[in-house]
Amino acid sequence: MSIPTLGRRSRPGSLGLFGFGAFGRLAARHLASHFTIRVFDPALDPGEPLPPSVAASTLERAAECDVVVLALPVEGMADALRGIAPHLRPGALVLDVGSVKTDPARLMDELLPAHVDVVATHPLFGPESARGGLAGLKIALCPVRGRGLRWIEAFLRRAFGLEVVVTTPEAHDREAAMAQGLTHLIAKVLVEMGPLPERITTRSFDLLREAIGMVRNDAPCVFDAIERANPHAPAVRRRFLELTAALGARLDAPPPA
Amino acid sequence: MSIPTLGRRSRPGSLGLFGFGAFGRLAARHLASHFTIRVFDPALDPGEPLPPSVAASTLERAAECDVVVLALPVEGMADALRGIAPHLRPGALVLDVGSVKTDPARLMDELLPAHVDVVATHPLFGPESARGGLAGLKIALCPVRGRGLRWIEAFLRRAFGLEVVVTTPEAHDREAAMAQGLTHLIAKVLVEMGPLPERITTRSFDLLREAIGMVRNDAPCVFDAIERANPHAPAVRRRFLELTAALGARLDAPPPA
Repeated sequence: MSIPTLGRRSRPGSLGLFGFGAFGRLAARHLASHFTIRVFDPALDPGEPLPPSVAASTLERAAECDVVVLALPVEGMADALRGIAPHLRPGALVLDVGSVKTDPARLMDELLPAHVDVVATHPLFGPESARGGLAGLKIALCPVRGRGLRWIEAFLRRAFGLEVVVTTPEAHDREAAMAQGLTHLIAKVLVEMGPLPERITTRSFDLLREAIGMVRNDAPCVFDAIERANPHAPAVRRRFLELTAALGARLDAPPPA
Repeated sequence: MSIPTLGRRSRPGSLGLFGFGAFGRLAARHLASHFTIRVFDPALDPGEPLPPSVAASTLERAAECDVVVLALPVEGMADALRGIAPHLRPGALVLDVGSVKTDPARLMDELLPAHVDVVATHPLFGPESARGGLAGLKIALCPVRGRGLRWIEAFLRRAFGLEVVVTTPEAHDREAAMAQGLTHLIAKVLVEMGPLPERITTRSFDLLREAIGMVRNDAPCVFDAIERANPHAPAVRRRFLELTAALGARLDAPPPA
């Protein structure tokens, strides 16, 4: 592999970052000391000042890097993959970072040339939860093809102190449908309920409010990926609704004598 | 008042504790270094070893104390008040500790003799959330009658580092219907949903799980008080259900073109 191996290279390799939304920016900030980063995002303002070792780039130049990171909405993935596929170099490592894994992993496997390695990833954090740094936060890695897993796993642990969870796209989506599907659903509803109490609060409610604060400003495409693109999310949501309605009905009924 | 004033008395006063459930025990543990405690609870095993300065007592002897704390289920409150009323001493301070305040405050005002002071309280914590100590946790105080408020407020701040929120029973119940009503409802449903993911979890979901862990073992009478005895809980619950169902319907519909 032509990607930098920790401690074995003095000059960092190149990293092509597709998508410069909230997560792309977070990634660039943390990766800039390890790679020369070329950003491709048609929405990027050419006048925007970027950190050292991060530069706006053409699609072609960003796709020619040692590592290619796709920080794009899930629904834009297929088009993006078709666009970059002809420009990827043999031995490059391609990663995505979306909140669902089954579809993106399949698309990357189908649409990318055989000469690149592919790992589907889901950093289980965002701009809010990473405010205090990355150490101890989690990232899920789903090996799709090639030899990139071992390296990226070691790099993420050593460089950032991330907790790496290696899993399959299917197992990931099943658990994420509960973990993220329920958190984002509950957060959205509680935000809609209007101002939450701040004086009469228990520690458990304070934790709930803190959880809401971490996801309430996530981009709409993150909410959509979690609630719509995850194949298990609708069933989890339906179960939550049924159990809530049943509990509400029990509570509204006269208490048992 | 005949209750001990901090720093003005060398010998602690007496405290009658009615109810020795999970919260009564927590209270006894923390209050034992400040008061001689007489516990009245018909369910108390006479052979149970109690901490120093805590002793089982008759109803009459417990009711004759300087401070009387009612750590009873809300639905047993009226009967208990009628039972202890004839034995209360002039100048005694009577406190309750339940999760709702409107009904208990009214009952204490109606059923207790004019010669006692009354403060309705709601410690906004329980055995789980108080595991790490009381400092920084909250307690709501609703003055009902007499001069006990100033003293109890100062005592709780100085002796335990509690954050004291002075409010009215009505304002308390309105906020608690959101804070506790929603937390306990959501926790009960998530527990019913079965084992929650532990590997693929975000920080926000970890907070949600932590919140659930704090309330899932609360006594059923605590859940009942929060969800049934709080006059505002049913409306909050209905709104949560309606908004969740509406959001679910929007998510299940085809995405807007």
